[in-house]
Amino acid sequence: MVVELISVGTEILLGNIVNTNAAYLSEECAKLGLSCYYQTVVGDNEERLTQTLELALTRSDIVILGGGLGPTPDDLTKEVAAKVCGKELRLDEKAKEDITKYFAKKNVSIPDNNWKQAMIPEDSVVLYNDNGTAPGVIIEYGDKRVVLLPGPPNELKPMFEEQVKPYINNIVPEVIVSKTVKICGIGESSVAKQVDDLIQNQTNPTIATYAKTGEVHLRITAKAKDESQAKKLIKPMIKDIKDRFGNAIYSTDENQTLEMTIADLLIANNLTLSTVESCTGGLLAGRIINVPGVSETYKSGYVTYSNKAKRKCIGVKKSSLEKYGAVSEQVAKEMAIGAHDVGKADVVVSTTGIAGPDGGTPEKPVGLVYIGCYVCGKTAVREFHFSGNRAKIRETTVANALILLRECLLEYFSENTFGKTDK
Amino acid sequence: MVVELISVGTEILLGNIVNTNAAYLSEECAKLGLSCYYQTVVGDNEERLTQTLELALTRSDIVILGGGLGPTPDDLTKEVAAKVCGKELRLDEKAKEDITKYFAKKNVSIPDNNWKQAMIPEDSVVLYNDNGTAPGVIIEYGDKRVVLLPGPPNELKPMFEEQVKPYINNIVPEVIVSKTVKICGIGESSVAKQVDDLIQNQTNPTIATYAKTGEVHLRITAKAKDESQAKKLIKPMIKDIKDRFGNAIYSTDENQTLEMTIADLLIANNLTLSTVESCTGGLLAGRIINVPGVSETYKSGYVTYSNKAKRKCIGVKKSSLEKYGAVSEQVAKEMAIGAHDVGKADVVVSTTGIAGPDGGTPEKPVGLVYIGCYVCGKTAVREFHFSGNRAKIRETTVANALILLRECLLEYFSENTFGKTDK
Repeated sequence: MVVELISVGTEILLGNIVNTNAAYLSEECAKLGLSCYYQTVVGDNEERLTQTLELALTRSDIVILGGGLGPTPDDLTKEVAAKVCGKELRLDEKAKEDITKYFAKKNVSIPDNNWKQAMIPEDSVVLYNDNGTAPGVIIEYGDKRVVLLPGPPNELKPMFEEQVKPYINNIVPEVIVSKTVKICGIGESSVAKQVDDLIQNQTNPTIATYAKTGEVHLRITAKAKDESQAKKLIKPMIKDIKDRFGNAIYSTDENQTLEMTIADLLIANNLTLSTVESCTGGLLAGRIINVPGVSETYKSGYVTYSNKAKRKCIGVKKSSLEKYGAVSEQVAKEMAIGAHDVGKADVVVSTTGIAGPDGGTPEKPVGLVYIGCYVCGKTAVREFHFSGNRAKIRETTVANALILLRECLLEYFSENTFGKTDK
Repeated sequence: MVVELISVGTEILLGNIVNTNAAYLSEECAKLGLSCYYQTVVGDNEERLTQTLELALTRSDIVILGGGLGPTPDDLTKEVAAKVCGKELRLDEKAKEDITKYFAKKNVSIPDNNWKQAMIPEDSVVLYNDNGTAPGVIIEYGDKRVVLLPGPPNELKPMFEEQVKPYINNIVPEVIVSKTVKICGIGESSVAKQVDDLIQNQTNPTIATYAKTGEVHLRITAKAKDESQAKKLIKPMIKDIKDRFGNAIYSTDENQTLEMTIADLLIANNLTLSTVESCTGGLLAGRIINVPGVSETYKSGYVTYSNKAKRKCIGVKKSSLEKYGAVSEQVAKEMAIGAHDVGKADVVVSTTGIAGPDGGTPEKPVGLVYIGCYVCGKTAVREFHFSGNRAKIRETTVANALILLRECLLEYFSENTFGKTDK
């Protein structure tokens, strides 16, 4: 079954607010096994809203409209939807009662225009609203459904969750199951090439690539009569992908981030972590600390942006700074070892680089970054050349610091070549 | 002139990502004086993308498409746009060179499929990409324009800002001048209330409010025959707003961020800065260090997430941690003073709080945050109660740390009540 989303609101067209409702509804509809091919945003304008809804009804089974159910004259989603579906608006007694109660609770007299919110298209399912004054509606229009939801996310979400989802579940014939394989340290085009045959031959399950900074996610999606059937379809493709990418896969859990994987690795092996940052200046620590419960492993972090801080805080040698410069393999190494000496963490990641826009030279251009990693007595440093603006270079550095850290940890655990192969 | 936005990407339709590009582009287009009536999201599907673009061209002068310029076979925005506009794709030598350089810099061999990114619709304006491998394109199609931009926001935004904006500015008949007044430390509804009369009576210039974390931006926009005419229209309203909000306005420069303003203040007064963070764990330093040239003032930062780090790194008293807890006014104060003692910066900001999801108690619920500020011997601590998830609480804390820092600096400079009024 095909669903289409229409968000109604001038504030979205002006860029005043980000359309998070659409993201929420899309994800929920995908989980329900609905295919979504179009999302549209349109303003509170009768003609354009009518055209948009009419077009959506020609190509989708379910049309969900969010917004424009408010009490003001320019809120006209319900009026337009009723007209397009040939329904009269009738007063709904329970909706009227709800509005009365809502205002009584707030100890506020009811503005006249609020009564229009109790008007409901005839023969429709009313979605009563516990969190506001606008009831939602499901209009049954032939074999199509038009779902009207209030715009505020704190009203739309519970209404969808509690009332629309069960309704749709009842009318959808198939179940959809998705699984995400998260790969780090390999570029998108390279990943795409390695799964090109799977992409070319996809039917059910389907496969799609999503590029993130330093990561590529592969999503495998199957449709079937029931969940176990869908999972069965997905399983062999996941196994195939695991064989292709091996250790570059850090998780197959949708909610697991790279920093969570690293925190889990450290905690499971009873290791503590510290960060020491120059060019990333706190962002690396910031990302790691977004993991709930990371205090079990994360000790302390140092932001040593100036040369003086590198020397005073963590004991980088003055001679190294003079001889090699702050952005150098040697300094990245001394930062990692120095932070270990000061903070006593088992594992340290260090970053030093030229994030720009100034500070680049022909020998050391903007984008040159060294990432160091100290793991229980051994260090590795890797040189990178990143491109982009200051924010992009810093973000890419953070991602690659996490990737190098994971790599070094895995090498350490396998007691393999750690500390030898890297320069 | 009417603009329409089409976002191309299955990941948006599946709800994997929020469509922040649309919000960004809408806001920028509004600034350019373009009217936006429709935004559409469509997947990487030839037929549906073709229909969507064709429909957009019937009703809008400029159609901006974001996404689908990647190297994989399912990226087909450029191919579809070329076909709809009746243009052949031709190899662009400079785009090819850019791709070669991009991969050479990364020391990676070029995947075969990346070459398709150098193919450009004939007679088009090429938007070279400094931050990725996908060049953008402006196709001139009769009196219409089709603008193709890469999907990743860190590529789309600078390309729009640096290349598309000047192009559109040239073809828009009237001049639009916008001025943004940036206010910090006052909530959106309170700001809106204070300018309600201006909003109600707006004609030319118009006024709009944009809520950001910890900030509200007021945008004043005037249309006129020429720039000086438009500026003349704006000037009295800016003056009026300055009178209303006084010191809460930190800038009237569109490109000036709160952290830039603070860095400027510090540098102009020859003061050095340090940060010491618990719940924000590096994000505050990260935001400050995103200011180019901040090394003139920023000394060092400490991420003291654990109690042990608070004691060992910056000398918070064990007895204070035991008596008051890590999230307390006293510890925020000792963190600020301790970081000054260790790092010798003139000014220090400290954060400690409960970002959740765990760790809250009835006395100290999730969202309780203390921010401390040390300025040349005096300290102030302020208590906050923030809501939202872990990331939101951390982000809000960072914003408020900057706001408090600025406030304390202004108080210090005016040799006023600093250190006395705050608890």
